[in-house]
Amino acid sequence: MRAIVNVYLKEGVLDPQGKAIAHALDSLGFGELVKGVRVGKQMVLELNSTDEASAKIEVEKMCETLLANTVIEDYTIEF
Amino acid sequence: MRAIVNVYLKEGVLDPQGKAIAHALDSLGFGELVKGVRVGKQMVLELNSTDEASAKIEVEKMCETLLANTVIEDYTIEF
Repeated sequence: MRAIVNVYLKEGVLDPQGKAIAHALDSLGFGELVKGVRVGKQMVLELNSTDEASAKIEVEKMCETLLANTVIEDYTIEF
Repeated sequence: MRAIVNVYLKEGVLDPQGKAIAHALDSLGFGELVKGVRVGKQMVLELNSTDEASAKIEVEKMCETLLANTVIEDYTIEF
């Protein structure tokens, strides 16, 4: 079973990596199309479990303790 | 309009960041549940466009030229 965790900066938190990418895209001629870029992490977890409900609870614990810095980041979990 | 680009390492390419996360999860007691972790990047692009077909072509160009290293990485584009 596979869980996909997306971790991204909260609204209002500065994202210098996204700014750098937007600037680089502008230099490449995509400036008119691209208004803004935000960058996050995507973690794909291979799980020894077939029970989505209990796995989700465990993956939430992983996010809270390790995968996301919940002061500045939010996360989503998909199966 | 928003495009979501996921960039991840190709199968077979070593992922030391994923290995480190898997090891840390093991230390936290999630070792039995988690078989493996792969880490990628997620970029959310805000676009000045309402035409999905033409935007997709442009975003593919961005991936090929800047956002992904296609030697070792694959990417997906979602709208």
